[in-house]
Amino acid sequence: METLARNPRNETGIETAVAILAQRFGPRLDRGEAMRAQHAHTMSWIAPQPADAVVFPETAEEVQEIVRVCAEHRVPVIPFGTGTSLEGHVNAPMGGISVDLSRMNRILAVHAEDMDVVVQPGVTRKALNQHLRDTGLFFPVDPGADASLGGMASTRASGTNAVRYGTMKDNVLGLKAVLPSGEILTTGGRARKSSAGYDLTRLMVGAEGTLGLITELTLKLHGIPEAISAAVCSFPSAQDACEAVIETIQIGLPVARIEYLDAAVVRAVNAYSKLTLPETPLLLLEFHGSAGSVAEQAEIFGAIAADHRGTGFEAATREEDRNRLWQARHDSYWACMQIRPGASAFTTDVCVPVSRLAEFIVMAEERATADGFQAPIVGHVGDGNFHVLLLVDMDDADEVRRAKAYVGWLNETAISMEGTCTGEHGVGQGKAPYLERELGAPALLVMAAIKAGIDPDNILNPGKIGLPA
Amino acid sequence: METLARNPRNETGIETAVAILAQRFGPRLDRGEAMRAQHAHTMSWIAPQPADAVVFPETAEEVQEIVRVCAEHRVPVIPFGTGTSLEGHVNAPMGGISVDLSRMNRILAVHAEDMDVVVQPGVTRKALNQHLRDTGLFFPVDPGADASLGGMASTRASGTNAVRYGTMKDNVLGLKAVLPSGEILTTGGRARKSSAGYDLTRLMVGAEGTLGLITELTLKLHGIPEAISAAVCSFPSAQDACEAVIETIQIGLPVARIEYLDAAVVRAVNAYSKLTLPETPLLLLEFHGSAGSVAEQAEIFGAIAADHRGTGFEAATREEDRNRLWQARHDSYWACMQIRPGASAFTTDVCVPVSRLAEFIVMAEERATADGFQAPIVGHVGDGNFHVLLLVDMDDADEVRRAKAYVGWLNETAISMEGTCTGEHGVGQGKAPYLERELGAPALLVMAAIKAGIDPDNILNPGKIGLPA
Repeated sequence: METLARNPRNETGIETAVAILAQRFGPRLDRGEAMRAQHAHTMSWIAPQPADAVVFPETAEEVQEIVRVCAEHRVPVIPFGTGTSLEGHVNAPMGGISVDLSRMNRILAVHAEDMDVVVQPGVTRKALNQHLRDTGLFFPVDPGADASLGGMASTRASGTNAVRYGTMKDNVLGLKAVLPSGEILTTGGRARKSSAGYDLTRLMVGAEGTLGLITELTLKLHGIPEAISAAVCSFPSAQDACEAVIETIQIGLPVARIEYLDAAVVRAVNAYSKLTLPETPLLLLEFHGSAGSVAEQAEIFGAIAADHRGTGFEAATREEDRNRLWQARHDSYWACMQIRPGASAFTTDVCVPVSRLAEFIVMAEERATADGFQAPIVGHVGDGNFHVLLLVDMDDADEVRRAKAYVGWLNETAISMEGTCTGEHGVGQGKAPYLERELGAPALLVMAAIKAGIDPDNILNPGKIGLPA
Repeated sequence: METLARNPRNETGIETAVAILAQRFGPRLDRGEAMRAQHAHTMSWIAPQPADAVVFPETAEEVQEIVRVCAEHRVPVIPFGTGTSLEGHVNAPMGGISVDLSRMNRILAVHAEDMDVVVQPGVTRKALNQHLRDTGLFFPVDPGADASLGGMASTRASGTNAVRYGTMKDNVLGLKAVLPSGEILTTGGRARKSSAGYDLTRLMVGAEGTLGLITELTLKLHGIPEAISAAVCSFPSAQDACEAVIETIQIGLPVARIEYLDAAVVRAVNAYSKLTLPETPLLLLEFHGSAGSVAEQAEIFGAIAADHRGTGFEAATREEDRNRLWQARHDSYWACMQIRPGASAFTTDVCVPVSRLAEFIVMAEERATADGFQAPIVGHVGDGNFHVLLLVDMDDADEVRRAKAYVGWLNETAISMEGTCTGEHGVGQGKAPYLERELGAPALLVMAAIKAGIDPDNILNPGKIGLPA
């Protein structure tokens, strides 16, 4: 299998391509430092590496033009959605052109009768659901941030609803993407299933823009449930809460969301969102279904929670109460940032088989305490997936070093439990060191062979997924 | 992107590799005509193309040895499960070695607490479910035939349960496969979700053995539902039956199975399975859930059916009655073969957005009648997927020509409706002519680039998925 060439930074090519694109796109190409910094500023702890220019295409044809110019001059192309990725995906380690797709934000077709929708990549998940509000349908994937759907597809995002509705992998029916040749790849139609050759849809979902620039997505929609209820339940320990989760999943209760917040997060959320939740580990749930089914699910979960020393179990069926709870969950990142003002968050993401979850969360909490970190934990625990937010003073080199060591330990532990170093944030730059340990050398060789076959000059988002820059 | 070399039949290499493997595997390598014919005899209408020898490995290490010998001598390697594929997947157009994986039939681990299982590729779906019978768990993917799980993964199989439980794409957590280099690729662990690089699991699922030989699969399991009920309902026309299906899917009723049998199939099934179903279009359903939910689902479907002139709606909750109905459905292929004794079945498979289903099935029936064919139709209609069984006298060249023209028309029509020429049977040899029309030239170039990157000498199952032999 071929290996990829590691390109040096191509100064001449970049200068030429920027000049050509500046002439073509006029004010829609920006070389200013502020704009470049904003497009390299992500929510990641990884140092920004700005591109040389940011361009704002409005059509797939314009994306083709940009890619053709960059291909001709061997210049990196870095796709940009909303910049909410967490592992350095939008960085430009070898420079190049950041392609901001936010102006490609049209919803092209709603096929309510087939429960699918065709969108441009810059449409955000909230904008899509707002557009769908009168159809009785919704798009369930919810990573918290109001990310673009192209970015969500590219990182194989998921979030709170995945335990019931799946991840982006499960909710993209097909897509179009501009290849390094400038041609547009179509990966599938609108059939609910297909066995027509290699699954190029799933290959592009999670490829982090390294194989093509997504210009159109066909997404599955779901019926808004007849009834929705939320519930909260407090537990004396992480162990008890996780055991309640494990039992819930094992008996097959079709919860739509089951989220874990540790005591530190609950404390932060109470302060930030003016709530009065008991400051112990908490599960926050949502049930979807018919009125009868939702009531039955809540009752069954209540019994499970009681068996695991859960207290204060309460179901909220009023939309206002539900929204308040879930807004608090979504704001937990910002709430946690208030725990240590001025600190930065090393947010990291692991996922393990659900049977290992209790043990792992307890270990993660204990080790953070032993290492002297404030490290609140939230998790999409129905999937065995959780995030640790290490609050770190980035000016303290020793603390940064210890934080990196903690993240390394967390990833290695997840892998040793037959889990993954990244459940939903992607690899980007931050998780690249762990990929070989997780999947083995042959998997990395196969990924490199695919990349070399499709993008032999390595111009599409180089330096991500453990591939050479 | 590179293109693949079209190999001539490599007589010297084949002779050498067969000799080496014969010495190594002794009686576990068979050069006899009967065995070779059996391994090229599929349920397909495509002419058999036997391999030069059939070998029966018992371990992954033996598969590695076989692949290394074949790679060294540039000899095709054709994986074989149970031979139930329908599009010529097990044919050896350039000769080579058929690798029969049926002896790799061990269940390696059942992780009931995580609802997953690790199996060798030769385990069949029925053997797996038999093994699981005391765990309260089951593996839902059910293509009808008692196929091997490796083969089901390789063709991205699905079947009657897919409308609720998904296809093989959705139920393989990870796998191991021997690459052309002889190394073993691992695509993932046991986490329920992962965003760790290119989705190699989904790439191998549906790759039809052209990228690696699967030696191990980790599969998702599901809880056996507390209650199951089946139901049948007759309709005066295909249009009415399909409209009932469309409404059922659109309101989000979580049916586990919703199968269409046209009047000809019902007639055949009555004769074959000694039933007395009304000989009009029929829907056969199964509901899974709690006792309350199953009753509610049946009631809601009953009301939908009545709105679409459905009659004789009847729910069967006794296991014996249910099994009888579903056995009849599974036997419908054999029942239909009795319609025209001596004829062969051109079984073909298409899938369209569900809104186009009624129109398409009516067109398919009308055109078959106009063309003078007996062509019973069965369908996994909840996914918009159906099969036409053209009953053809293979000795009548003109009839064969007309049958091929019909299949071509059916595929082209599915594609024109934004559907696919293969919902679940794979591409193999039979669907290759339609792939470019469905996905466009760039998709085929990308598939060829992936194949060339991973298998540059084109030794793994050459001549499938529209790739060169």
